[in-house]
Amino acid sequence: MKPFLLFIKRKPILILLLALPLAYLAEFLHWGPIWVFAFSALAVIPLAALIGEGTETLAAHTNPRIGGLLNATLGNAAELIIAIVAIREGLLELVKASITGSILGNLLLVMGMSMLVGGVRHGIQSFDRRQASRNAVLLVLAVITLLIPSIFSGYIGNPESIRVEALSIGTALVMIILYGLALLYSFKYEGAPLSHKSVEEIVHKPAWSVRKAIIILALATAGVVLASELLVQAVEPVMAGLGISEFFIGIIFIPLIGNVAEHLVAVKVAANNQMDLSVEIAVSSSLQIALFVAPVLVFISLIFGNPMQLIFNPLELIALTAGVLITAFVSEDGESNWLEGAELLTIYIILALGFFLID
Amino acid sequence: MKPFLLFIKRKPILILLLALPLAYLAEFLHWGPIWVFAFSALAVIPLAALIGEGTETLAAHTNPRIGGLLNATLGNAAELIIAIVAIREGLLELVKASITGSILGNLLLVMGMSMLVGGVRHGIQSFDRRQASRNAVLLVLAVITLLIPSIFSGYIGNPESIRVEALSIGTALVMIILYGLALLYSFKYEGAPLSHKSVEEIVHKPAWSVRKAIIILALATAGVVLASELLVQAVEPVMAGLGISEFFIGIIFIPLIGNVAEHLVAVKVAANNQMDLSVEIAVSSSLQIALFVAPVLVFISLIFGNPMQLIFNPLELIALTAGVLITAFVSEDGESNWLEGAELLTIYIILALGFFLID
Amino acid sequence: MKPFLLFIKRKPILILLLALPLAYLAEFLHWGPIWVFAFSALAVIPLAALIGEGTETLAAHTNPRIGGLLNATLGNAAELIIAIVAIREGLLELVKASITGSILGNLLLVMGMSMLVGGVRHGIQSFDRRQASRNAVLLVLAVITLLIPSIFSGYIGNPESIRVEALSIGTALVMIILYGLALLYSFKYEGAPLSHKSVEEIVHKPAWSVRKAIIILALATAGVVLASELLVQAVEPVMAGLGISEFFIGIIFIPLIGNVAEHLVAVKVAANNQMDLSVEIAVSSSLQIALFVAPVLVFISLIFGNPMQLIFNPLELIALTAGVLITAFVSEDGESNWLEGAELLTIYIILALGFFLID
Repeated sequence: MKPFLLFIKRKPILILLLALPLAYLAEFLHWGPIWVFAFSALAVIPLAALIGEGTETLAAHTNPRIGGLLNATLGNAAELIIAIVAIREGLLELVKASITGSILGNLLLVMGMSMLVGGVRHGIQSFDRRQASRNAVLLVLAVITLLIPSIFSGYIGNPESIRVEALSIGTALVMIILYGLALLYSFKYEGAPLSHKSVEEIVHKPAWSVRKAIIILALATAGVVLASELLVQAVEPVMAGLGISEFFIGIIFIPLIGNVAEHLVAVKVAANNQMDLSVEIAVSSSLQIALFVAPVLVFISLIFGNPMQLIFNPLELIALTAGVLITAFVSEDGESNWLEGAELLTIYIILALGFFLID
Repeated sequence: MKPFLLFIKRKPILILLLALPLAYLAEFLHWGPIWVFAFSALAVIPLAALIGEGTETLAAHTNPRIGGLLNATLGNAAELIIAIVAIREGLLELVKASITGSILGNLLLVMGMSMLVGGVRHGIQSFDRRQASRNAVLLVLAVITLLIPSIFSGYIGNPESIRVEALSIGTALVMIILYGLALLYSFKYEGAPLSHKSVEEIVHKPAWSVRKAIIILALATAGVVLASELLVQAVEPVMAGLGISEFFIGIIFIPLIGNVAEHLVAVKVAANNQMDLSVEIAVSSSLQIALFVAPVLVFISLIFGNPMQLIFNPLELIALTAGVLITAFVSEDGESNWLEGAELLTIYIILALGFFLID
Repeated sequence: MKPFLLFIKRKPILILLLALPLAYLAEFLHWGPIWVFAFSALAVIPLAALIGEGTETLAAHTNPRIGGLLNATLGNAAELIIAIVAIREGLLELVKASITGSILGNLLLVMGMSMLVGGVRHGIQSFDRRQASRNAVLLVLAVITLLIPSIFSGYIGNPESIRVEALSIGTALVMIILYGLALLYSFKYEGAPLSHKSVEEIVHKPAWSVRKAIIILALATAGVVLASELLVQAVEPVMAGLGISEFFIGIIFIPLIGNVAEHLVAVKVAANNQMDLSVEIAVSSSLQIALFVAPVLVFISLIFGNPMQLIFNPLELIALTAGVLITAFVSEDGESNWLEGAELLTIYIILALGFFLID
């Protein structure tokens, strides 16, 4: 018990791990779906944080290439697991909304908050202009690759047709290949879009051994699976009960709980005037969701027999386009200030309001 | 009489003040709505110029912060008054068209003409790259904040529903807060988006005392109110009589008469190779319309019981997006030449033709 | 016979000239439309190359201004001829698809391949940032000028109405004037969007005399006319027979055969690390298609009594917007690498897949 308490003391966020048993208690004692939903959502926060830290630790212990690969694939493991569970349950619209929300949350909420907090403390902050410009290009590309199948599908046939499915699968394949190429590029050149700078290395030294990191990773992953099961089952009754749309849950709420820990790191790093790293955390996470998680989910959905096409809703497409364009323009000059942070947050707030008001 | 004549001599534009009594004469002698419309429109030109000069003079006499605040709120007073009168009459589509047109007119017509004239005289002209880039970001943001409620509304419900109204009011509130933050930012940093550089100070010294400026401001404001009354009442019969659409009047014509004086100053300044100032006049006026005048009108419309939502027509949205994107790309390199001026004017001409041809 | 064989040896592509008689043989011996189509398409490749080389040679023999003018008008002569023949046959949608495809092919396929090949060989390659930025602006402008009539037309009336026709003709006129101004500008300033750098001068010396160049130009032009006749007549039976859409033929296939030679030159030049020239070939060809060929075809279509409006299909507009935006962001920093090449190709492949899957 004592090491656990010490652990909690070092990372107060881990107190939230208690929400996992509470969620199961709520389920078995029939406290109602809202309690199940709330506790399982809370439980995801520390578990996602542990997965993140485990991945970083493993990455820090291996060579940069394997480290980069680990981060590039496991960096959004919690979101991936929640999405897989939701696909199994056939909640495809929720999954696509959470993909959208994850990209928007990283670009607008995390980056906006980082620039706001960092800018208030340090005035004008700068980051690598060339890298920012390359990232902006990849972001624009990522949104275009999601836009094309979404819009073309309507002209090709109904969503179940083999041609629409072929477009989705083909696009997903090309996206994964491009993500692989971007990773390969990052191994060769510093400052490339996905090159790995370990947060662990910079923020603090790795505290865990490889063995410990693997055990924690495995346990936390199992925990996220357990929490996701309850979370996903409770989603529909909660939406019906509270009158909230699938959009709001998917776009605003789920990405939030899957990323809280990462968000805090990005803001903390910005407050320490390491804007380069802060921007990279937000942007590379977005790129990973768009160019890796989304297409991987297309293939995983085939396995579960609930094929998910890359067909996003018009509002999701507009939100993504708006979010990426404003990020591209904000980050292109390699400088940020608190006003730019406030600008990104403004777009996030208006989008959140819009999605909240949809019936 | 003599001082008035001297005044006219110094500023020939003021001869147009005679159009105001002529407009009332046309109204009372029933010369027909076209004459009323024409004279009241002509009368707005010198009155708007006087309001602009009065504001500038007051700003020059006070400290930069209050000066900045005066300009940021009264800079488009003539447009604001016309819009308020039109809202009272329930001409909401006309008001939204004139908001669109005011932004487009400043970005495409004024900036295009300035770059064309300045470029023909001076070859390649340069302006502050960093400030241009920050302004571009705010412009993109402003358009996105208008796009989101316009497009989301269609998915939320019919325009009169409480949810659509909530989205409009919420967005308007966030926009005004952001405008306030941008203003605050401009007080602290040189070269910020809305920082005040007095045209008066640069072009010529303030000719009026504070007292005189306030009197002229009050009289000119009253004059604009009087002219707007006639103008707005004559709009509908004129559209019907000439077969021109509300779009053309709102997007092309009204912004033109409200900004002639400002346009002339911007072009003159560009011809004097002060491109920095010229670009700033056009851009800050656009930002003010989008982030301040538009949301303020949403609240004013509530007072008059004619609630105006931030729901713009698809064509207005496309025109705004096109105008802002081309401006962002043109201004981002901090350089201009006559070809870029011609490019902006090209877009303006094609848009004007398009709006003219709509029935 | 001997000089012809020597000629073939120097330029192996010319062996494809034999496809022209084969196409006529296929037509007269009724081998079926697919053979006619395939042979006439093959024949266009060397003929387009000869027109290109003839134009370059003439340009190299005259002064830079006339050379620039020759390139700016004859640079896409093969595409222009095919389009004119197709307009005469009333295949207006095919013509508009091939305009779209020509722009996309240059920006995404040619530029992507050039950056990929050049980047693999030379790492990061750089080109003139200012010129790239000016070209990006013109590209964005070109797409906007195609977007506005396309979208406004739907609100103005049905495609045959006089108002829609007026918008098309007016827009076409303004585009040609702007193209003329851009050309004029390029005569005065180095590094301007359309300034002429002869590929001939840089890659190798002109091999032909003026007289020989004119004869070859005339013969190759006649050859393209003959090949186009067969090609265009075979298009419809081929589409029906193979179940391919007009989109795929127009957007992917026709621009490919009209540009193979030019494509090879651009890639070769990039492989020689002359990225400036390579980017310019791709971009100036796109600009020429959008701002010169497209509006000229509007006027030519009037002569044939088959008026073609500048109304593009929504998918074409999305493809153009996506292609130009990604190109603008990729080229704006004045640097390229193989990853950026792969990014452009990714968009091209996904678009090609989408157009292929449309029924």
